[in-house]
Amino acid sequence: MKVAAFAGGVGGAKLAGGLQATLAPTDLCVVVNTADDFDIWGLRVCPDLDTVMYALAALANPETGWGIKDDSFGALGMISTYGEEDWFRLGDKDLATHILRTHRLRAGMRLTEVTAGLADGLGVRTTLLPMCDERVSTMLKTRAGLLDFQEYFARRGQKDEVLGVELCGIDNARIPAEVSKAIAGAEAIIFCPSNPVVSLGPILAVPGMHELLAGSSAPKIAVSPIVGGRALKGPADKMLRSLGHEVSATGVARMYSGLVNGFVVDQVDREEQVSISALGMHVLVTDAVMRNETDRERLAREVLRFCSGLETR
Amino acid sequence: MKVAAFAGGVGGAKLAGGLQATLAPTDLCVVVNTADDFDIWGLRVCPDLDTVMYALAALANPETGWGIKDDSFGALGMISTYGEEDWFRLGDKDLATHILRTHRLRAGMRLTEVTAGLADGLGVRTTLLPMCDERVSTMLKTRAGLLDFQEYFARRGQKDEVLGVELCGIDNARIPAEVSKAIAGAEAIIFCPSNPVVSLGPILAVPGMHELLAGSSAPKIAVSPIVGGRALKGPADKMLRSLGHEVSATGVARMYSGLVNGFVVDQVDREEQVSISALGMHVLVTDAVMRNETDRERLAREVLRFCSGLETR
Repeated sequence: MKVAAFAGGVGGAKLAGGLQATLAPTDLCVVVNTADDFDIWGLRVCPDLDTVMYALAALANPETGWGIKDDSFGALGMISTYGEEDWFRLGDKDLATHILRTHRLRAGMRLTEVTAGLADGLGVRTTLLPMCDERVSTMLKTRAGLLDFQEYFARRGQKDEVLGVELCGIDNARIPAEVSKAIAGAEAIIFCPSNPVVSLGPILAVPGMHELLAGSSAPKIAVSPIVGGRALKGPADKMLRSLGHEVSATGVARMYSGLVNGFVVDQVDREEQVSISALGMHVLVTDAVMRNETDRERLAREVLRFCSGLETR
Repeated sequence: MKVAAFAGGVGGAKLAGGLQATLAPTDLCVVVNTADDFDIWGLRVCPDLDTVMYALAALANPETGWGIKDDSFGALGMISTYGEEDWFRLGDKDLATHILRTHRLRAGMRLTEVTAGLADGLGVRTTLLPMCDERVSTMLKTRAGLLDFQEYFARRGQKDEVLGVELCGIDNARIPAEVSKAIAGAEAIIFCPSNPVVSLGPILAVPGMHELLAGSSAPKIAVSPIVGGRALKGPADKMLRSLGHEVSATGVARMYSGLVNGFVVDQVDREEQVSISALGMHVLVTDAVMRNETDRERLAREVLRFCSGLETR
């Protein structure tokens, strides 16, 4: 089964890892949010692409979910000695990724090509695609003013209430041919359990993405990143609340209304089956929390089976 | 005593360290070769500036003379995993220097300003100056063709016979105001024991440098990098031979003829006193090999005393 998955950071990376373990190597394509990308010390950092890439390469730091396991922080310490701020915790091995990415982008390669080259270097056979090659930047409206995503997320520790979201540059973004092809050719499209506002939101906001999805007859299912009224990781719950969404699986399902025809919720949210079905979605109730590798593969298999079921209706 | 010293890499860094330990903090200015500078993975690396800076910051790796002590190589290993060549051994802490330098240069700062900022970050109070702000590249003519300096030096291990030297970009180089001021204000000018062809050669080749030196009435002395017919470190001896110079202290003295009025040789070369004196130079015979900190400081003191002696003649 050819699968295209949409992913943000840690939660998306986990399910992508499970899908990779379940599918034939060439059957998975992961389309990743790039609106968190930013430049630091002249280096282009793509946090979500890297989190997914490291997870697929079995290099991810299991404690944090981001960064590379057993990495050192020699460069960061020295950068701090030189008087620069060190709130973005880039490890030494991780830096290699940003150095080469920046170098290759400056040489004129598209981010899509650069990402393919890096993933290939790490032996990743899953196709990893940025949502677009253009720069898009998530800016968050807060009482402290308009904040860069990483300023909000990493530097200020997600303490600001998010009152609005702007995707700067999204109007100039174009769906890369590789993404069009992957979605058009997919037999299942999966929205990973990532933040619907700042992770999957930007992917869905690339001009033409809704039309591209509508043009596909493949089953499209989303896995809820909200379980028991809370985000599994990150600030999605607080963000949904302050932006006026319901902080529940149903709240997320509403945001994907018209885009997906299946929705996966955790057992603790089984009572939401009714409200989600009312949106015209089929619902799979399962254990949707991925604590370890086994969970990831099991959830991936269940999600794929759910897709197959939708296909035959 | 206000001192301006010309330095290349390891040998120059050693004497610069000795001078720094001997002089008042604001009395030393080291002018460093930048014709070995190169770009790798989009980062600007200035090997001689960094070797001197790390030595003056007491961060130098004592085993190699270059790089930072106790550095790790996580980034380099990863860069190699990504399929790039890893012959230039950049450590993780060292990378921080190149990342910030590149970032600041791209932001429009002059190399002189960038260098001052980095040295300040490391607590170095000696003034560290690049020979110029423009790019100059030493290219070596060999039977394998024209080689970049680092291609010859680090990648191919100095195995090629050097048949000629080109300093690309030297015609466009300008003596920075900071260098002019340091030389004009110096009460002693010291040519450190660095390679006369590829380390001090480029500094002396910056247009106007000979005139600037001629305009100074300060004693000018050179310390021989050749002891007992061999280079203390690096390929200076092979290079002198293949370029038709005599491989001896006298051979080096001849290259500085008209530029310096004092020359320092090691005891093993005491018989060359006659031939060097014949060039119109005063000669100091001493232990010119710097094995450790004590040697560096002793040689620095002797060199300064030699300068004072020349001053009073």
